[in-house]
Amino acid sequence: MKITRIDLTPVAFADPPLLNSAGVHEPWALRTIVEVHTDEGISGLGETYGDLAHIERLKTVVPSLIGLDVFALGLMHKRVGESLGGQTGEDTHGLTGQFSAPGTVDRVYSPFEVACLDIQGRAIGRPVVDLLGGKVRETVPYSAYLFYKWAGHPGAPDDQWGEAIDPAGVVAQARQLIDEYGFKSIKLKGGVFPPEQEIEAIKALREAFPDTPLRLDPNAAWTPATGIKVAKQLDGIVEYLEDPSPEIEGMAEVAASAPMPLATNMCVVSFEHLAPSVKVNAVQVILSDHHYWGGLRRSAHLAMICRTFGIGLSMHSNSHLGISLAAMTHLAAATPNLTYACDTHYPWNAADDVVAPGALSFVDGSLAVPPGPGLGVELDRDVLARLAENYRNCGITKRNDTGYMQKFDPSYEMRRPRW
Amino acid sequence: MKITRIDLTPVAFADPPLLNSAGVHEPWALRTIVEVHTDEGISGLGETYGDLAHIERLKTVVPSLIGLDVFALGLMHKRVGESLGGQTGEDTHGLTGQFSAPGTVDRVYSPFEVACLDIQGRAIGRPVVDLLGGKVRETVPYSAYLFYKWAGHPGAPDDQWGEAIDPAGVVAQARQLIDEYGFKSIKLKGGVFPPEQEIEAIKALREAFPDTPLRLDPNAAWTPATGIKVAKQLDGIVEYLEDPSPEIEGMAEVAASAPMPLATNMCVVSFEHLAPSVKVNAVQVILSDHHYWGGLRRSAHLAMICRTFGIGLSMHSNSHLGISLAAMTHLAAATPNLTYACDTHYPWNAADDVVAPGALSFVDGSLAVPPGPGLGVELDRDVLARLAENYRNCGITKRNDTGYMQKFDPSYEMRRPRW
Ligand SMILES: [Mg+2]
Ligand SMILES: [Mg+2]
Repeated sequence: MKITRIDLTPVAFADPPLLNSAGVHEPWALRTIVEVHTDEGISGLGETYGDLAHIERLKTVVPSLIGLDVFALGLMHKRVGESLGGQTGEDTHGLTGQFSAPGTVDRVYSPFEVACLDIQGRAIGRPVVDLLGGKVRETVPYSAYLFYKWAGHPGAPDDQWGEAIDPAGVVAQARQLIDEYGFKSIKLKGGVFPPEQEIEAIKALREAFPDTPLRLDPNAAWTPATGIKVAKQLDGIVEYLEDPSPEIEGMAEVAASAPMPLATNMCVVSFEHLAPSVKVNAVQVILSDHHYWGGLRRSAHLAMICRTFGIGLSMHSNSHLGISLAAMTHLAAATPNLTYACDTHYPWNAADDVVAPGALSFVDGSLAVPPGPGLGVELDRDVLARLAENYRNCGITKRNDTGYMQKFDPSYEMRRPRW
Repeated sequence: MKITRIDLTPVAFADPPLLNSAGVHEPWALRTIVEVHTDEGISGLGETYGDLAHIERLKTVVPSLIGLDVFALGLMHKRVGESLGGQTGEDTHGLTGQFSAPGTVDRVYSPFEVACLDIQGRAIGRPVVDLLGGKVRETVPYSAYLFYKWAGHPGAPDDQWGEAIDPAGVVAQARQLIDEYGFKSIKLKGGVFPPEQEIEAIKALREAFPDTPLRLDPNAAWTPATGIKVAKQLDGIVEYLEDPSPEIEGMAEVAASAPMPLATNMCVVSFEHLAPSVKVNAVQVILSDHHYWGGLRRSAHLAMICRTFGIGLSMHSNSHLGISLAAMTHLAAATPNLTYACDTHYPWNAADDVVAPGALSFVDGSLAVPPGPGLGVELDRDVLARLAENYRNCGITKRNDTGYMQKFDPSYEMRRPRW
């Protein structure tokens, strides 16, 4: 079953003003929808980043994939690497760690692999989870992903979630998300306010939700000394502390005295980071993400590496749509050592999903694996057309949380660590 | 597609008097042929060890597998673990390292997984290699596996290979195997004679085959001091030295001053050995073996671990038949970082293969991947019946190279290290 054509559709969807250590989310988030078509009339879906440089890299490799068998994934990975010829992408928004040449290959390869697994599943009448070893859990738990946020984008009306810039606002947001989705774990995106304020927010969450596992992620906004201090103050309160400080060295320094595990989606984001990190025990939890770990099968390898080296496993997300959510759910359902609920931005962007309704509904904070075949989701072509139109009109071609913040606060500087 | 019945058929096949650091091969080698049947009439094949304790463990888990979907491999692994309830097998013959509870689960699970992949491939009309990511090479190279040996079993006529107890005999054996199979790499099983004699044999091979990669495997017969001495004498002559000394500590000691990579199928034989080995850089090549690494998919994980931690990869074998050879070939063809030719005992036992002729023919020392579907091999039922009869009659229920040696040399002692 050979690949005959690949369609790449950049899309933009509405995104609330979510704050982080690099600035604030712009009104539009970008993704690329990937459709792989075959000579047997079966097509498959993938979803990936939407910044222009990434789209250019996707376009670069497409010609080398035409004619490939959809089961020839090892060869596909090789072709992607050859087509990119050692290119290294850049982390323009500063939130997912350092790029590398092999990491760039994995990022570009990922949506094509997912689409081929979708096709394989459709062809054989099986859900993608079965291509990954089958379900070891029926449903996949996700966490409530809280953000400090403004009430609405400046100049626009307030959005449905309202403001959250203090402990009370954060607790109210948690209630809103938990009421709607039933989440059983809570993650707060930090790195926005001085650490003392974020510790207060976490303590307020602990008081409001005494039995709910909590996490805090300042995206490397703290020096190792600050990270160590915060870690001691959150002892017994968070299940893990995510990326307190920059780089493997900084994380190792915090880890050496932190009482809880440290997690990362910033300092270990590609296979070549694993050996240096294991050597110094920099992280105790890896937030896996098939978008940059090279698709679902390589993420399954990563899971086994974590298991083998005694590293916990959770799942990272950027702003995304339902194709990614379905892929994450199939993968997580097949992963024995998924030791924490997965992160997802989905509630913040669900209104614009390109996936036709019905396949993805949270119950008690968890998603059932779409029964398939393949990923078990279909494109809503009207929504896709609307989001593609958004992309053409929105004028954004690469994520820039810092630049958007500076529009409203010209003195704002990107600093890492900041405290 | 659900499992309805599993047939386990212990078999015995003729084995020449091959010498190693534990004694000498008995006239019969044991294996178990596993046939998994499904409610859709498709069956699949696996092959595993044939010692009685292992067969008992296979029997223990079979009831828990009935009714499982053939794609539910994660669940199958879990059920095998639960059924075994923490049992730990023993390495009765002393040649494949230490057993552990998780390693025992992987050993027992392996043939069922292979059989399920055979079924999956047959059901979807695809070779097993496609279930592992597809071919990254068309053919898989194997090495000529040389043994010191007697001319024949005591009391029996000389066999077709004749005696090899000195450099000249070893070189003659290499010529015989290379003439017949076309192998491009040579491995000598050592640990039989004092190291100086084995160094002489390797040097004679180097002289006779100036461009052929060479390896020597004394099965941990040497102290670290001896290992270091031999390593220095073989500098520039062998591509790797296999298991010179016992255990991770001994290997690390040799590795610290050996000029060539060290390989193992003895001190790192299960996932829990990887972290301690990586920590001290005990081995630079792992000889993977799906029979004890938990089948083909877990062996693919191992391959990725090796790649990630900069460890070379080759493939180990015990005496085996064509089902195992087919499985090894599918796996190796899908493995990008197979950095050395695979080992196989197959030439020593090929005359008794249970696989119907035609699927597995060496050309220039390599095997083409059987085109499938599934493993691409079929049982010869007449041979299977004959080999099952051998098993019932041969009186051997566990491999005992040391005991067999002692029949002819009552003073022989199993000692490790010996030199
Ligand atoms: Mg993070
Ligand atoms: Mg060996």
